[in-house]
Amino acid sequence: MAFQYLTNIPLEDARKQYLDALIARGLSPRAEAVRTQEANHRVTSSAVYARICAPHYNACAMDGIALRASLTNYASETHPVALSPEQYTWVNTGDPLPEGCDCVVMVEDVIQDSDVVRVYGAAVPWQHVRQIGEDIAAGDMIVPTNTELSPSALGAMLAAGVLELQVYAKPRVAVIPSGNELVDPSENPGQGSIIEFNTTIFSNTFQDWGCETKVFPIVPDNQAAIELALREAALASDVVVLNAGSSAGMKDFALDAIKSIGEVILHGIAIKPGKPAILAVAEMDGRVIPIIGLPGYPVSGIIVMDQLVKPVVARLTMRPFLPDQFVEATISRRLTSTLKYLEFVRARLGAVNGKLIAVPLNRGAGVVSSFVKADGIIQVPQDTEGFEPGESVPVQLLRPRQEIEKTLVITGSHDPLLDEITDIMKTRWPDSMVASSHVGSMGAIMALRRGEAHLGGIHLLDEATGTYNIPYLRKYFPDGGVVLMRCVARTQGLMTATGNPLGLKGIEDLPEVRYVNRQKGSGTRILIDYLLKQKQINPADIQDYDREEMTHTAVAAAIAAGSADAGLGILSAARIYNLGFIPVCEEQYDLLISESAMQLESVQRLVDILKGEEFAGRMQKMGGYTLVNPGEIIPWN
Amino acid sequence: MAFQYLTNIPLEDARKQYLDALIARGLSPRAEAVRTQEANHRVTSSAVYARICAPHYNACAMDGIALRASLTNYASETHPVALSPEQYTWVNTGDPLPEGCDCVVMVEDVIQDSDVVRVYGAAVPWQHVRQIGEDIAAGDMIVPTNTELSPSALGAMLAAGVLELQVYAKPRVAVIPSGNELVDPSENPGQGSIIEFNTTIFSNTFQDWGCETKVFPIVPDNQAAIELALREAALASDVVVLNAGSSAGMKDFALDAIKSIGEVILHGIAIKPGKPAILAVAEMDGRVIPIIGLPGYPVSGIIVMDQLVKPVVARLTMRPFLPDQFVEATISRRLTSTLKYLEFVRARLGAVNGKLIAVPLNRGAGVVSSFVKADGIIQVPQDTEGFEPGESVPVQLLRPRQEIEKTLVITGSHDPLLDEITDIMKTRWPDSMVASSHVGSMGAIMALRRGEAHLGGIHLLDEATGTYNIPYLRKYFPDGGVVLMRCVARTQGLMTATGNPLGLKGIEDLPEVRYVNRQKGSGTRILIDYLLKQKQINPADIQDYDREEMTHTAVAAAIAAGSADAGLGILSAARIYNLGFIPVCEEQYDLLISESAMQLESVQRLVDILKGEEFAGRMQKMGGYTLVNPGEIIPWN
Repeated sequence: MAFQYLTNIPLEDARKQYLDALIARGLSPRAEAVRTQEANHRVTSSAVYARICAPHYNACAMDGIALRASLTNYASETHPVALSPEQYTWVNTGDPLPEGCDCVVMVEDVIQDSDVVRVYGAAVPWQHVRQIGEDIAAGDMIVPTNTELSPSALGAMLAAGVLELQVYAKPRVAVIPSGNELVDPSENPGQGSIIEFNTTIFSNTFQDWGCETKVFPIVPDNQAAIELALREAALASDVVVLNAGSSAGMKDFALDAIKSIGEVILHGIAIKPGKPAILAVAEMDGRVIPIIGLPGYPVSGIIVMDQLVKPVVARLTMRPFLPDQFVEATISRRLTSTLKYLEFVRARLGAVNGKLIAVPLNRGAGVVSSFVKADGIIQVPQDTEGFEPGESVPVQLLRPRQEIEKTLVITGSHDPLLDEITDIMKTRWPDSMVASSHVGSMGAIMALRRGEAHLGGIHLLDEATGTYNIPYLRKYFPDGGVVLMRCVARTQGLMTATGNPLGLKGIEDLPEVRYVNRQKGSGTRILIDYLLKQKQINPADIQDYDREEMTHTAVAAAIAAGSADAGLGILSAARIYNLGFIPVCEEQYDLLISESAMQLESVQRLVDILKGEEFAGRMQKMGGYTLVNPGEIIPWN
Repeated sequence: MAFQYLTNIPLEDARKQYLDALIARGLSPRAEAVRTQEANHRVTSSAVYARICAPHYNACAMDGIALRASLTNYASETHPVALSPEQYTWVNTGDPLPEGCDCVVMVEDVIQDSDVVRVYGAAVPWQHVRQIGEDIAAGDMIVPTNTELSPSALGAMLAAGVLELQVYAKPRVAVIPSGNELVDPSENPGQGSIIEFNTTIFSNTFQDWGCETKVFPIVPDNQAAIELALREAALASDVVVLNAGSSAGMKDFALDAIKSIGEVILHGIAIKPGKPAILAVAEMDGRVIPIIGLPGYPVSGIIVMDQLVKPVVARLTMRPFLPDQFVEATISRRLTSTLKYLEFVRARLGAVNGKLIAVPLNRGAGVVSSFVKADGIIQVPQDTEGFEPGESVPVQLLRPRQEIEKTLVITGSHDPLLDEITDIMKTRWPDSMVASSHVGSMGAIMALRRGEAHLGGIHLLDEATGTYNIPYLRKYFPDGGVVLMRCVARTQGLMTATGNPLGLKGIEDLPEVRYVNRQKGSGTRILIDYLLKQKQINPADIQDYDREEMTHTAVAAAIAAGSADAGLGILSAARIYNLGFIPVCEEQYDLLISESAMQLESVQRLVDILKGEEFAGRMQKMGGYTLVNPGEIIPWN
């Protein structure tokens, strides 16, 4: 049922159709008068002219004497001119030039002898005088229409007697959250309740765009209630945003509610995520009010805001709507997409050996944290099926390129200690930038082989020798090129519910319980596969063995929530959730570093941190770590 | 006397010495707790960890049925699996995954037959389920220390149960204006009174840098009063700025006042303007408070703010202090400088034929309007005597390079109509950028010959033929390359005080009065020279004939203020000041346009404006203009 009534309009067309429809109905910015002192960054709605001259009188520009320059015509070092008191006046900087004078001689160039002064050089008429209107003359245009004002512009306007001016009013935006499942962030959410955080994202974004925002209380899934809120919002706002209920599911009342107060211009855009956006308009009291139904998932909402709502706001603030800024980057892994939509995929970006690499992040429309990590958005065009690894892809930048170029790119096995290292680094050197992604130990090896990361954590047990990491390096880096650095030894074990209520003893009990696993290629997955093989247990006999999580904490969270009984992971993760923990082995968690990255300032900072007390202290507090010469280079080839 | 006690420390050294001195005394940012919803753009003072998982339960990600995936193992299009009501549950997006289920099948893929449903394909365990912690797991670090927060980061924190967090407090900055000559902008300034606008510039700049500001009332030139204000400010602020009185003149109490509450680290920096800045520190209640004495001239103050105060604020907000961003540009005219100082010269920038040109602006330290016009600042190093025209110079960018590249560069004769054209252009096409500088008609010819402007206004009378403009083009552009476009005919005349109290009749009366002239090379100067020659009057017989102004309005302002009796200029300028006006002649004011610029969108817009009604209407309102086919190309070669 869902989506069946939705159109599938290409993004550019949708943007144009919507804006054209709004403008055709008369959408235009409001103007208002503001005090000059309070007009910083506002945009002028009409030209501003000087009311008085600046300076508004001929002003002495130096401390010294004012006089008629012609009196000094033949003055020189050897033949100074003596001036009697009627011929000059002592002045300070800013004093009006006295009547009959046309210049100032600096105090440094005057010798005083009781009330006679001597001048040792000829003065030039109008020297050291700020002539009336030197800065701005009355009637001059200070700034034209549609100019964003800077602090200096405010100063110039005040100097020219402009105390108030006309600027575009900040658009008033109403943001209405809707859904029975939503609860305010201050409430303790129960099962099935979703913390309402979208309006915080949207309202702060609108403020960044120069709007004033009002967030409405959560409206239940009830068409009458939604209509009422929409009407109230439209009466007092320039733009109304309704969040959620915009697709065509059982509880999607947004469309009919919006139709009750206005006209739907478009419903269904050929983008992913963001497809079910509703672009509508209401007309009230002669005002044209854009009404936008944003999809409920935060990532979908953010994309629609950025691509479709921003140009509408730009029209109301008269700021330029700049096209996305793109860079070309090499994509690190395969990315499939559909021909039906223009797809937006968040990505980490990193410059490794001068090559800009894009690592696609979790595409889940609910994964808002990916926007915290993302440096850019890969835009997969509507007519493209995706990209193969190594292809050059267009990436919309979310951070300045300079920042990306100096980012330390960590790709590999997950351990919370990497976040702690990042935190120590940013605390000691606030300009540090670190991007880490969790792709498992094998992922680290592959990323370094392809030159897509500076370093990564690895803990790879070699079944044949029972040793860690080195056999893998010999296999995958026969020609060298990487450095192995000692980080920590850490305790892996079976995490269970608090107090181990099922009384699990070890690996041999796993066929009895619901297991939650780590993803293939992670060191922990390799370890559990190995441990099962040792005990001659068939993984197929373990319930949910295919259920995969990407991090130790995600495994712990699943167990803590009761949706799994056991999973292999590290002690520090078990501790966060107060889980039962049955130690299984101690393993070597090292850092694999590209040789060329060893020279980077960021890597040197990392080594410094590994060897320091702050790191040791934090590891001890987290638990399950043993530190033996962290930062030491391990010879391996 | 002035400056004699001042040091002359190079800028980089001064910056470092001051910051080191502050840090050695313990300068550090304050932290405070803020609500997550209100933390946009704030910088974290400690790492933020997730308190709960997001989602905090296994949530259905689609509308459909929840079930155990294994039930559908052998389902296919031809052999659907029928499920009885005990085997499935209808769910909506966001619902908790029911006990015993491990996946969701979308409503679109289910056929319902009373209470039995049929599924036509095998479901994969955990499909369409947002597993607990999929976005963020409790205990995960969401952002490290020293991270500026975005709206998405606020959303992620709320989703993870973080309602409040620690960020750096906004530094509280006190700005104290000082000087007997200062009056509030709201007062009507008399002779010798200066409108106090510096604190508006500085306080808005501090706000742009993330500070809270308090502007004090104007303090008179009285050491005790300044001391009192400084002490009051230091008690309640993190940074104190005292504006004016910082050099060593007769009324400069700043130094002694600052010494009474703290310690002066540096007084006298090898920069121009900005030399007399005072960099000091006070310690109160265990707090370290930077105290800065800013020079009184606005341009000096802005340079000191940018170069020396900004890094101190960056330390208190923990934002990176980024080095100035430079571009190389070709300087359009000679720029002399002293070896004693690093000199900052505001400049217009424009890209003409792909070459970036820097045109130095008025260097006056009081000319704040130059900051409104400036696109960049030429930094002349301390050991450099200046630059010759055509040399490549380092320019600190004040606007994005993209904007500069699309700016229409107008260089030539002054007429307020150019500002009106700019205003019409920005009103109709808000993305337009226009930079015009007034260098006279000959300046236009020279700038176009050197490829430094797209176009300029000219009104050049050829004495031999009595015709306008064309003879000059034949002389200076023998090989063509420029287009002459009709703009307006305008009335030049003698401006006098209101009502012409001296009863001037014309040019012949000029030897009797105080004259105010236009600069050499301007069309108006060429015209007056020609008119005097016709009447056989020697310019040397006219008082103040060498007094030069750069614009018609500045000439009018001088006459209106009574500091001159007459000057040649256009009617529209005389009207602004309600001056007497004795028409002398009608002249042809045309536009000289580089042939290569004719293709630019901005020039096409200009032509469109010249031919339009809005322009004609404005010209009629201003007065003294006759329009005959404006925008028409005049054949000349």
